[in-house]
Amino acid sequence: MNQTNGREDTSVVENNVVDVEDDSKEKDLVSVEKVFENQEVPSWKKQLTVRAMVVSFFLSILFSLIVMKLNLTTGIIPSLNISAGLLGFFFLRTWTKFLEKSGLLRQPFTRQENTVIQTCVVASSGIAFSGGFGSYIFGMSGTIAKQTPDDSKEFKNPNLAWMIGFLFVVSFLGLFSVVPLRKVMIVDFKLTYPSGTATAHLINSFHTPAGAKLAKKQVRTLGKFFSFSFLWGFFQWFFTAGDDCGFVNFPTFGLKAYKNKFYFDFSATYVGVGMICPYIINISVLLGGILSWGLMWPLIETRKGHWFSADLKPSSLHGLQGYKVFVAIAMILGDGLYNFFKVLSRTLAALFYQVRGIDRTNSLPIADHPTSLDSSKQSFDEQRRTQLFLKDQIPTWFAAAGYVAIAAISTATLPHIFHQLRWYYILVIYIFAPTLAFCNAYGCGLTDWSLASTYGKLAIFIIGAWAGASHGGVLAGLAACGVMMNIVSTASDLTQDFKTGYLTLSSPRSMFVSQIIGTAMGCIISPCVFWLFYKAFHDLGQPGSQYPAPFAVIYRNMAMLGVQGFSALPKNCLLLCYIFFGSAILINLIRDLLGKKWSRFIPLPMAMAIPFYLGPYFAIDMCLGSLILFVWETINKAKADAFAPAVASGLICGDGIWTLPSSILALAGVKPPICMKFLSRRVNDRVDHFLSS
Amino acid sequence: MNQTNGREDTSVVENNVVDVEDDSKEKDLVSVEKVFENQEVPSWKKQLTVRAMVVSFFLSILFSLIVMKLNLTTGIIPSLNISAGLLGFFFLRTWTKFLEKSGLLRQPFTRQENTVIQTCVVASSGIAFSGGFGSYIFGMSGTIAKQTPDDSKEFKNPNLAWMIGFLFVVSFLGLFSVVPLRKVMIVDFKLTYPSGTATAHLINSFHTPAGAKLAKKQVRTLGKFFSFSFLWGFFQWFFTAGDDCGFVNFPTFGLKAYKNKFYFDFSATYVGVGMICPYIINISVLLGGILSWGLMWPLIETRKGHWFSADLKPSSLHGLQGYKVFVAIAMILGDGLYNFFKVLSRTLAALFYQVRGIDRTNSLPIADHPTSLDSSKQSFDEQRRTQLFLKDQIPTWFAAAGYVAIAAISTATLPHIFHQLRWYYILVIYIFAPTLAFCNAYGCGLTDWSLASTYGKLAIFIIGAWAGASHGGVLAGLAACGVMMNIVSTASDLTQDFKTGYLTLSSPRSMFVSQIIGTAMGCIISPCVFWLFYKAFHDLGQPGSQYPAPFAVIYRNMAMLGVQGFSALPKNCLLLCYIFFGSAILINLIRDLLGKKWSRFIPLPMAMAIPFYLGPYFAIDMCLGSLILFVWETINKAKADAFAPAVASGLICGDGIWTLPSSILALAGVKPPICMKFLSRRVNDRVDHFLSS
Repeated sequence: MNQTNGREDTSVVENNVVDVEDDSKEKDLVSVEKVFENQEVPSWKKQLTVRAMVVSFFLSILFSLIVMKLNLTTGIIPSLNISAGLLGFFFLRTWTKFLEKSGLLRQPFTRQENTVIQTCVVASSGIAFSGGFGSYIFGMSGTIAKQTPDDSKEFKNPNLAWMIGFLFVVSFLGLFSVVPLRKVMIVDFKLTYPSGTATAHLINSFHTPAGAKLAKKQVRTLGKFFSFSFLWGFFQWFFTAGDDCGFVNFPTFGLKAYKNKFYFDFSATYVGVGMICPYIINISVLLGGILSWGLMWPLIETRKGHWFSADLKPSSLHGLQGYKVFVAIAMILGDGLYNFFKVLSRTLAALFYQVRGIDRTNSLPIADHPTSLDSSKQSFDEQRRTQLFLKDQIPTWFAAAGYVAIAAISTATLPHIFHQLRWYYILVIYIFAPTLAFCNAYGCGLTDWSLASTYGKLAIFIIGAWAGASHGGVLAGLAACGVMMNIVSTASDLTQDFKTGYLTLSSPRSMFVSQIIGTAMGCIISPCVFWLFYKAFHDLGQPGSQYPAPFAVIYRNMAMLGVQGFSALPKNCLLLCYIFFGSAILINLIRDLLGKKWSRFIPLPMAMAIPFYLGPYFAIDMCLGSLILFVWETINKAKADAFAPAVASGLICGDGIWTLPSSILALAGVKPPICMKFLSRRVNDRVDHFLSS
Repeated sequence: MNQTNGREDTSVVENNVVDVEDDSKEKDLVSVEKVFENQEVPSWKKQLTVRAMVVSFFLSILFSLIVMKLNLTTGIIPSLNISAGLLGFFFLRTWTKFLEKSGLLRQPFTRQENTVIQTCVVASSGIAFSGGFGSYIFGMSGTIAKQTPDDSKEFKNPNLAWMIGFLFVVSFLGLFSVVPLRKVMIVDFKLTYPSGTATAHLINSFHTPAGAKLAKKQVRTLGKFFSFSFLWGFFQWFFTAGDDCGFVNFPTFGLKAYKNKFYFDFSATYVGVGMICPYIINISVLLGGILSWGLMWPLIETRKGHWFSADLKPSSLHGLQGYKVFVAIAMILGDGLYNFFKVLSRTLAALFYQVRGIDRTNSLPIADHPTSLDSSKQSFDEQRRTQLFLKDQIPTWFAAAGYVAIAAISTATLPHIFHQLRWYYILVIYIFAPTLAFCNAYGCGLTDWSLASTYGKLAIFIIGAWAGASHGGVLAGLAACGVMMNIVSTASDLTQDFKTGYLTLSSPRSMFVSQIIGTAMGCIISPCVFWLFYKAFHDLGQPGSQYPAPFAVIYRNMAMLGVQGFSALPKNCLLLCYIFFGSAILINLIRDLLGKKWSRFIPLPMAMAIPFYLGPYFAIDMCLGSLILFVWETINKAKADAFAPAVASGLICGDGIWTLPSSILALAGVKPPICMKFLSRRVNDRVDHFLSS
């Protein structure tokens, strides 16, 4: 099983989640369902309560805010499943406790309801990622277009109406495409889905008495760090009156290091992210940062006038900026391609054996669990889960009809939104999409790694090249990327949720409906949240600003590369790209060839590439998070394991929710009163002289 | 017993120390000396080891640095006895452990040796306080003279040679004056000496096996916070390139609050001081700050042009600054006078009954312990302690001869240092000094409150008025203050140490010799440390600078008041002074009349007066320290009690020792590279415009 999982572009990972799962696997053998045996499983309609939807709605807004902020700052998004499960539990538990006391409680709070909330929230906040507000959609905008070499006139600025319309016509297809295959993947193939399994274990544990007690403590810890992080964000705000002001620009290691983006920016979010991500990710990011901003860029800078013209704007892609963007793209593509073929070959091999019915438990290291269908070997848990999973059916004709209907609407509508995207491009995508959606859902079940954005990049290059530069290939490519990404991403999310549902005895129907409702919520909430950022922060997408939206630039440049070729690159840039593309594949190969013992010391190319463009400042935050976790684990491993995710979630959520008032303040034109400025001694003397005169 | 103790001017207190003592009192009944019975008590000469003196020397430098820093910033000095005991134990224990392993240890580490170190260090760092570098000596300088109303030409700038000479001729008199009376006070009167007792208990506990374990943990905690505090000081340094730069000027509550000196200045020292001082001190300081800088000064500011001329320099004592200084003096004098008479009346009453041999255990609430001399009632501990205390005698003729000899040298020398100070002033002081020294030592034994600086102020007014303005009364008064303060301060310190020695079976002779050595060290170390500050920080003594030396201004103005009367004060200032002088007495009266239950909620006027002049910024630090302690005590009282003093000492010592490298850097002309500046939005826009043009 691959160590990394979560969303591929962002290399983000739920390794501690996987740990939880590994731990609980043994407990599974003791039989979880025996504990819950006396508890009645509500019908699928009763699992979908109004209160669950209300809680989901508010949590969706919270998580969309967080995901959007992460999208627009670095593009690194940690798994928020645990937070969603925890907060969902907390809100509904409080609500039901309150009703219980007033005697108005008609229906007790069940783990199925908890699963419904989690599914709905993850589906909804998933749109904030797959909606591409930090990548393809914002990549179409004029802001990003101005930063590309040819100062392309081809752009489409974001607008609330078309974004919501676009999301509605593309986001539901993925759901319908995998529904017929759920039995094959969950019951027959018994795929792992580590994140889904971990979430299910979490929810199951919450609803046993001991689990509820721990959950309560975790929620209290989360609440404490949530408040701290929120207040810290608030406090920081007061000191950001000007552009380079505030803690975000604190030259912790001196002004020279600051110029090369080595500084601690006091971001509670990324300290939290660092605590959730496994050590190797954080180390990789830091390593990438040191390699690029500590070594390569300063060296290339000295070639100014030789390799590239000395009188370019700093943001010009013909200059140093070009090396940063394209070397990062090369590394991301190399890593993506390697993993695409790895997962694809595993998928095909596994399918081949599966279909032939060969029990290859020991012959191939693909799936971790025996896949035999032998019912005599089934445990009590498995029997009960399978029985309930198969009870509520979703007819195949319904799924097929749904898919065709939505595809038809979509094919008709999309060319009106993006006139560069011909109807036949869309039709071709929709013909191949179900296969790719299945591939992604299957691969995700094996490795926990959704390759959605790799499929998206594939679409960029294929459709971009097909359309060609003269017919708006850049926009067509980006739009096609969006169509493709949404399908494959929602497909793997839904199958993941089916697994969670299977393990918590939730009905597939309620999962499906919850996912549909969540997706619908996401289609409205996410564009609105993005709109809030877009209107509130006018320097959105500018390099070096608070929200540089790194992947928007990267995606647009990939589209241009697909359409126009390598002609625009500065000198030696292509050579460097080849080297880093090759290294990404090589490093991955080494990771896979070395045993598990050593491979965990090999950095991840995808994680290394992100600071190439952005600078290593967030790597410092993340490594601090790692350090805190490491020290904590050294002092008290049990406590760290139980509470670190809560602390991290608190830090991330608090800072995330602070973005809401902060953007409202920005919209209302309320400016912070103080500027905390950092000046060198020489400049300071000048300023003091100026101020006293 | 009065709640406040320590050095009177600084209202600083060892209430937790007193707590320790209260706790251990019961253990005493179980008999401490039974535990130590098998341990041989070394002869007094063997108690005075070379290694103890070496350790004392280095600790003396550390503590002199700390006390000097505190002198020059706010004048609030917490008790460092515990730190001295702890660090002394740590260093010698490490040293002996090392020798033990290498087989070279000839003499084991005893509690007597530990007491010798503690005595020596406290004596030495005591000189840093009673030497008056933050009060009368620096008050003589030209820097301070320039800030007084008449721009007095009468000044004497500090100089290493005369300061050391001065200290040597005045600091030893106090020791000889109380030696003959030690038996009366320790054995016969059984005075409490809370600080001395607490230190003795601490040292005793260190040398039992369980105590050594706890001490080791405490030392580790101290070490951790020491490093943190040191590194934090180092980190802060980098951002202080200009005058208003760095964390010290952080407008935590906004720029408007900052202008009225309400801000958190990130000083580890004062957070630590806040943790050691009892809550009521911190609250008093904050209250005084709010009353003055939040209410009175802004109100008086509005009377600008009416009450005082509008075109004065901000530092002129004819303007707002005058109100700040003289109202503070009035309050300090009111409090001092009240306590002087209180302690004096108690002393006389107690003496009266003591001499008459009346057992008044229940008739008068003066001493907490029964003072009966009935040996039949003596416990094993008391018998053994008394026996050893009386074993090594210091002959009275030796003490008397020493006093007369030093007094003669002193009377002959001092007029050469301060030609304003006639030989007959000094003779008069020396005739009355032994009585006052005894009074102070006795009062300190009862209340733990050394009134040294009140006796000093008395000398300022009496000698100042006697000399008169035309004959340099200001300098004569300040010099007389020094003579007086040193005698009474060392007298009470020595008696305090006799008590510690009594409780740890240390010989009075070794205590006396250790105190002499410590005093001699202090007479050299303290002026050198002051000299370091004086040379390294050129704005020493300037209002609003890093080292404003508040008491230097206050002492000089008291001397002027004594010599010249009230003529120089701005309008209504005298009225305010009367009001605050009266309130100080009234508040003290209320404190004493109310029961112990309520009196602890009444603020202390002395503590309230300090921020009148300085501003409440250090009160914020101290209250933060209080808050941390309060939360800690709420969570885990036992742990907080055991480790809070170690944490506080670590914070104070780390920041204190950082002053050494920081002043060396300043002397070497190494300037910090960055300025962290805080500008209002409007000013920031101007600066940005200026920098970009």
